[in-house]
Amino acid sequence: MAKEITSRADDYSEWYIDLVRKAGLADYSAVKGCMVIKPYGYAIWENMRDQLDKRFKETGHVNAYFPLFIPKSLFEAEEKNAEGFAKECAVVTHYRLKTDPNNKGKLIVDPEAKLEEELIVRPTSEAIIWNTYKGWIQSYRDLPILINQWANVVRWEMRTRLFLRTAEFLWQEGHTAHATAAEAVAETTKMLDVYAEFVEEWMALPVVKGVKTANERFAGADDTYCIEAMMQDGKALQAGTSHFLGQNFAKAFDVKFLSKNNELEYVWATSWGVSTRLMGALVMAHSDDEGLILPPKLAPHQVVIIPIPKPSEELTAASNEIASKLRAKGIRVKIDDNDHNRPGFKFAEYEKLGVPVRLGIGARDLANNSVEVARRDTKEKKNVPLEGLDQYIEDLLAEIQQNIYNKAKEYQQSHITEVNSWEEFIEVLDGKGGFVSAHWDGSSETEDIIKEETKATIRCIPLNNKLEDGKCIRTGNPSKQRVLFARAY
Amino acid sequence: MAKEITSRADDYSEWYIDLVRKAGLADYSAVKGCMVIKPYGYAIWENMRDQLDKRFKETGHVNAYFPLFIPKSLFEAEEKNAEGFAKECAVVTHYRLKTDPNNKGKLIVDPEAKLEEELIVRPTSEAIIWNTYKGWIQSYRDLPILINQWANVVRWEMRTRLFLRTAEFLWQEGHTAHATAAEAVAETTKMLDVYAEFVEEWMALPVVKGVKTANERFAGADDTYCIEAMMQDGKALQAGTSHFLGQNFAKAFDVKFLSKNNELEYVWATSWGVSTRLMGALVMAHSDDEGLILPPKLAPHQVVIIPIPKPSEELTAASNEIASKLRAKGIRVKIDDNDHNRPGFKFAEYEKLGVPVRLGIGARDLANNSVEVARRDTKEKKNVPLEGLDQYIEDLLAEIQQNIYNKAKEYQQSHITEVNSWEEFIEVLDGKGGFVSAHWDGSSETEDIIKEETKATIRCIPLNNKLEDGKCIRTGNPSKQRVLFARAY
Repeated sequence: MAKEITSRADDYSEWYIDLVRKAGLADYSAVKGCMVIKPYGYAIWENMRDQLDKRFKETGHVNAYFPLFIPKSLFEAEEKNAEGFAKECAVVTHYRLKTDPNNKGKLIVDPEAKLEEELIVRPTSEAIIWNTYKGWIQSYRDLPILINQWANVVRWEMRTRLFLRTAEFLWQEGHTAHATAAEAVAETTKMLDVYAEFVEEWMALPVVKGVKTANERFAGADDTYCIEAMMQDGKALQAGTSHFLGQNFAKAFDVKFLSKNNELEYVWATSWGVSTRLMGALVMAHSDDEGLILPPKLAPHQVVIIPIPKPSEELTAASNEIASKLRAKGIRVKIDDNDHNRPGFKFAEYEKLGVPVRLGIGARDLANNSVEVARRDTKEKKNVPLEGLDQYIEDLLAEIQQNIYNKAKEYQQSHITEVNSWEEFIEVLDGKGGFVSAHWDGSSETEDIIKEETKATIRCIPLNNKLEDGKCIRTGNPSKQRVLFARAY
Repeated sequence: MAKEITSRADDYSEWYIDLVRKAGLADYSAVKGCMVIKPYGYAIWENMRDQLDKRFKETGHVNAYFPLFIPKSLFEAEEKNAEGFAKECAVVTHYRLKTDPNNKGKLIVDPEAKLEEELIVRPTSEAIIWNTYKGWIQSYRDLPILINQWANVVRWEMRTRLFLRTAEFLWQEGHTAHATAAEAVAETTKMLDVYAEFVEEWMALPVVKGVKTANERFAGADDTYCIEAMMQDGKALQAGTSHFLGQNFAKAFDVKFLSKNNELEYVWATSWGVSTRLMGALVMAHSDDEGLILPPKLAPHQVVIIPIPKPSEELTAASNEIASKLRAKGIRVKIDDNDHNRPGFKFAEYEKLGVPVRLGIGARDLANNSVEVARRDTKEKKNVPLEGLDQYIEDLLAEIQQNIYNKAKEYQQSHITEVNSWEEFIEVLDGKGGFVSAHWDGSSETEDIIKEETKATIRCIPLNNKLEDGKCIRTGNPSKQRVLFARAY
């Protein structure tokens, strides 16, 4: 099994792609840069989506759906936003095909069906949504608007990588409208907390919450908050962003409301999103050379039962009985009663798929009223009595969830390194990797130089950062606080 | 309230659009032909989606996601399918914008970023999916593949109507692959049954199951099965289709498998879909001049509680207590504690929104240990004791669901009319409307003539139709069975 997956030590990047493809999460498609999300990958994404959706609703949001296409004239209305995405836009120019007169059975774009105005396939929906909100908002009584959308978006990327960077991806984008700046800022940080909690508790992945520098801000935002995760190779992965958009979009689309004081004011905005990129983070953060390691909360199958050496009437009956007890506790169970493949093959297969717990049931086990329980994270095996097995498994799944988180947390904590000189900075970046906590003089120019020289970017200024006088590692200019640098996905 | 909604008698078509817009289901957007699905409409769609998704999974299907774009060369591979959709295709030709040198702050399509091959925005996904399945299928052990996708699709329509016909819409599309024709046909009818059950039990809308004539078949299918619903104006609405695709796509994309007999054979296919069009059917089938009438199973709020004449500490406490008892039974409850609007305004508002049950709570009611219960479907009001109210409401919701279905069923049954002459046919079509059951000679030409002369199409040949000798109403040629004609949405 391991043979089909490149090892992390040999090539971390290849290991990742092998894993995504061989574990049936996603694959390349016939469309350049676009992926097919395969059933097993989609099942994990559904679990993520359902949990996020629940949290959005609990925090007062509702879902809606806005058009895929944005007329060019609307798209360009908020200039910074438009400029930020212009280079990655798929553009619809025609609305009809016709048969090719010179080539039977083939089609050509009908030149007579050219659109009067080109349509942009949404790379993000602020423009179409704020143009819509204009018609919905008259008075402070119409505020806040707390809407989320689950959708596909397109950003034409030249170099793509499954889940991490694809031309089309799935995401959710929240778009809220508020009467005051303070309320909008509070919404921005509230949703950042929702993301951080989800990623830590469900994906078992610790994150640093912070705010982006001006260089790294979302195009059109006044402030971008983010959660930054650390992968096993020490690189950073931005796992979610929440933007305080100020009145930029309200001004671009002329969205005003009559305040309680009877004054016309521009509306305040936020937007926030996470995407199928999280799937990439999930894979890269926890998995090993044998395959995926999935946190139980997100695993499509939390337990797999394998009859040993092969299915029989007795073993299938016992498997069903165990499964129904586990299912009564809400545990997702699969019974593998395929009789072509040997247990060894199946063991390797479910290791690759990252199923958290494997139960092996043989006739001798049954005679002893026990089963063999193997956990994917530590690979420990143990004989466990059938009596009370359901409770044992429930506790074990919680323990595995916690263990996966602890391991990632330990790695993260040991890979956030304070440095005080340029030499140290380079040494850590090129050596142990991870996040480098260093003083920076606050200028975009310095940030650009550091990026050019080292490929490291400022991932964020951590929230509640302690203030501390220091000198910029690159320029020696005075600095008031440390920021986190890293090379990133 | 009624003033803002055109009455059905005045203009059925305007009534529908008014209702969709004023009840906050959907609205037109800045993009020609595309709609915004507003939160209240989307909440109903979510309920539909979740229930359908549950049924798909119960019948062994899994979800996946395939690219939005289809390269033109793949799109045209199955010629009939391509020809069927060619005239409605949005085409992406460029992948970048750039700043307009002649117009500061504006963008133009970058002529240097022209795609080598145009991309079609999917109007349906058979092509991209069968091109993908080719890589997944080698042997009979890889079959069946039972995949569903929830997605947006684009069909460039010239005349659009909210939900019923829009350039972009949301849908699900099942795409299955089988080793035998029999298995594929069984899948096709199984999914038709899933649709019929959902529409009847959840949307409270009776349907006729049938098979389409060759003229009305999905482009690329060997057979199209459908469920046909009847709207209050007697017109038909195709509520779902399930296609037996034969080996057409397998041949177009060269998808073969090694059979148990060790022979290479083409794979058999089905596809099946329902869309946000169902939202239109739901509105048009049940609602009245005051607003929506929603079946309780799909209503976002099943019960609304209104303090009368306005919220007070006592009334809010009582409302919360009632709500929590109802919620404990899984009932979706909203408390309207807005204190700007009077009860009369609120009553009209929730009638418009189609909330199945309204509870009015006043101080006098509380003193009598009762509340006023008003049902939306019949507009009956009744004082009901607080004691046992939760059970009363649970039963009432079931009764309302059944009553809405019965009413639609009665209408449908009284509007399926057997006719035996051309004169009768025209008379019924132009008079009482509904489905007209008539003999037809089985020829596409006759079907075309009837369509041209009357705008009526053959909605379907009902499944399990009884055979009966007769003469075609239009040509007098011999016929073996009646078919259902109607004018349709």
